[in-house]
Amino acid sequence: MSQRSVATVRPVEEAEATGRVAAIFADIKATKGIDFVPRLWKVLATNADLLESTWARLKSAMHPEALGRVSKLDPLTREIIALAVSATNGCSYCVNSHTAAVRKLGLDVEALGEVMAVVALFNSTNALAEGYQVEPDVFPPAE
Amino acid sequence: MSQRSVATVRPVEEAEATGRVAAIFADIKATKGIDFVPRLWKVLATNADLLESTWARLKSAMHPEALGRVSKLDPLTREIIALAVSATNGCSYCVNSHTAAVRKLGLDVEALGEVMAVVALFNSTNALAEGYQVEPDVFPPAE
Amino acid sequence: MSQRSVATVRPVEEAEATGRVAAIFADIKATKGIDFVPRLWKVLATNADLLESTWARLKSAMHPEALGRVSKLDPLTREIIALAVSATNGCSYCVNSHTAAVRKLGLDVEALGEVMAVVALFNSTNALAEGYQVEPDVFPPAE
Amino acid sequence: MSQRSVATVRPVEEAEATGRVAAIFADIKATKGIDFVPRLWKVLATNADLLESTWARLKSAMHPEALGRVSKLDPLTREIIALAVSATNGCSYCVNSHTAAVRKLGLDVEALGEVMAVVALFNSTNALAEGYQVEPDVFPPAE
Amino acid sequence: MSQRSVATVRPVEEAEATGRVAAIFADIKATKGIDFVPRLWKVLATNADLLESTWARLKSAMHPEALGRVSKLDPLTREIIALAVSATNGCSYCVNSHTAAVRKLGLDVEALGEVMAVVALFNSTNALAEGYQVEPDVFPPAE
Amino acid sequence: MSQRSVATVRPVEEAEATGRVAAIFADIKATKGIDFVPRLWKVLATNADLLESTWARLKSAMHPEALGRVSKLDPLTREIIALAVSATNGCSYCVNSHTAAVRKLGLDVEALGEVMAVVALFNSTNALAEGYQVEPDVFPPAE
Repeated sequence: MSQRSVATVRPVEEAEATGRVAAIFADIKATKGIDFVPRLWKVLATNADLLESTWARLKSAMHPEALGRVSKLDPLTREIIALAVSATNGCSYCVNSHTAAVRKLGLDVEALGEVMAVVALFNSTNALAEGYQVEPDVFPPAE
Repeated sequence: MSQRSVATVRPVEEAEATGRVAAIFADIKATKGIDFVPRLWKVLATNADLLESTWARLKSAMHPEALGRVSKLDPLTREIIALAVSATNGCSYCVNSHTAAVRKLGLDVEALGEVMAVVALFNSTNALAEGYQVEPDVFPPAE
Repeated sequence: MSQRSVATVRPVEEAEATGRVAAIFADIKATKGIDFVPRLWKVLATNADLLESTWARLKSAMHPEALGRVSKLDPLTREIIALAVSATNGCSYCVNSHTAAVRKLGLDVEALGEVMAVVALFNSTNALAEGYQVEPDVFPPAE
Repeated sequence: MSQRSVATVRPVEEAEATGRVAAIFADIKATKGIDFVPRLWKVLATNADLLESTWARLKSAMHPEALGRVSKLDPLTREIIALAVSATNGCSYCVNSHTAAVRKLGLDVEALGEVMAVVALFNSTNALAEGYQVEPDVFPPAE
Repeated sequence: MSQRSVATVRPVEEAEATGRVAAIFADIKATKGIDFVPRLWKVLATNADLLESTWARLKSAMHPEALGRVSKLDPLTREIIALAVSATNGCSYCVNSHTAAVRKLGLDVEALGEVMAVVALFNSTNALAEGYQVEPDVFPPAE
Repeated sequence: MSQRSVATVRPVEEAEATGRVAAIFADIKATKGIDFVPRLWKVLATNADLLESTWARLKSAMHPEALGRVSKLDPLTREIIALAVSATNGCSYCVNSHTAAVRKLGLDVEALGEVMAVVALFNSTNALAEGYQVEPDVFPPAE
């Protein structure tokens, strides 16, 4: 037996999925244009309500066109934000997943380095602003 | 006397700056096209080496054109990353500063909401991937 | 004019809300049994899709009974989790909001201290486990 | 030689423990009702004062009954808080350990999903409150 | 009435403290050599067990000499670590408190800038190591 | 094929490095007094500007003597700060790297435990100060 399991719960495999879970698995693959269900979703399927509400949120934020909405952000920008958040939080699963996504959307290794330079920079300036407790400059609220 | 100081150290005001600090203050205003020195830089000026190395890093990551480099990321994308990192870290100074920057670069309140939707989403999926300790799906390393 | 705005965007006040936003504001008040719309929701209303998807997620996770679901977690436990997450992340708005919620649900100041003792403890043991890079003990995945 | 050590320091194994360390190891097993010393404690034993003060803190916060105190929080709620903090911080060792603990205390996979839904939700609303710098609603301090 | 309270709970003022709380307040002032009880401790006093266990931990880690122990770390190094952790976590109360402490121990503003330079640097390299998911170089465990 | 790559990008090996990258690799080894290039730098070399600006920042903060500057912080204190930040952020690569560095600079396992005790303590008091939203005590800004 392997000493390292794939998660703290046993994922629901595609072959086992029925009803609502199977329908969401199918929607994930169709919406994302991929031929497998990423492991995170198979894990979330251990609670169908969690799977459903997480997928609804992701579809709304990342695939607005699938819901008939026009977005002001392009797909690459959205995936870059996802990668920036995941690098900042240090989430292995998420960094791997969103690096693959930005690569698929055309970001090359050189440009990935530019993204990381910005992520690294602001993790340091955030620490400086907090470390010196700098009060915000005054800007009017955005209307 | 105000009970709340603007920082844990007394900022170096523009009128006091001399030598290396004055030169960097001037470069900050010129490079960013603004007519004041943001408070963070006035605080960092309490240690000229810190001011210099932080500004060199920011100039490299955020103003590559000022260094004669061609970037694959546009300025708005870079500021969006900065905002995503700052929101994730909960840095007040930084959120205020980068919200002002994305607004100046044309992002309206509706689109800001789209950015925040993505930032919020991935802070939650990061927690899920970590909370269930999901092992990464396998992707080849990017070349 | 106050130097501190209430947010980086101008909140949508209840009196201004129409259509989808007004309906969600009404649902928030009815579901939570409160007579005002908390400021976070008025800020999210600057992007109706963000308001809608965030509220849908919160309703699913925190008010399952309003969706006809039977939950294995009681409302106080859910609010305690919210407070633990918010204290860990250092989110002012959220700590204030969830402290008020646990108080309303009957947690007294003494018991709040017990919650904080646990939150504080595990923020320290998390740092120890990470600071020494301790490999997990082996447990079977939960079925 | 394995490329992956179990920690950055060599843990103190039970067979090696003497004096104060052996006594604390015995108390850990007795208080927690387990038949092994979890690896974190074996690592902390490399500094007996650290082991002692960490265990004292954990015993106080998590096993008040062992100290003759009456707690207003039940053991499952305390372990759920531990899991929520650990998922938010992304601590592998801790998530594994506290998932095992909540499972042993009777939380099934479905209910674990409810916990994770709440943890995920508030990691996202925390990012929104910070990302928009929403000022707290006004509540009186808890007495 | 002020709109901003000093905490989510009403602190226990020195004049109100009795018994165990009064004794700990006295020990805090004597051990730290200060003539007031910092607000954090007055807040923790709302739960005497929390106050006691937190103070025991702090005394053990920060004032080993008061417990008759010989430490290999000097007081300034310990306060610098406290400041580095607090800046990284973005804790206002703590940054203010530990900046005052390092100042009192003789660290000048120039040297504070050196500390912040290191804190800022490693918050950025941490983000890079996580953002690229770099596997650790191999080192033997410390004996 | 291994299921776990060493990073999300293919590192630039020393044998492949040319021009600016080779020069920085040589400077890293000479400045740090080591005979290999740590993996993080080989990964950053996938974008030469990122490698250059990160190394310039690290050299300035960690090796001021190599730049002819006199520092008020000794090398061990700087590495201890690095370790404290990395433990707080939970960065595996960084904890491993800086633990090796403090060990090389003479910190023994007992003293490492003292560092970890301080890091752990303030991660818990940070959570308490945030969890109760304690307002800072008033101190004058450092001059």
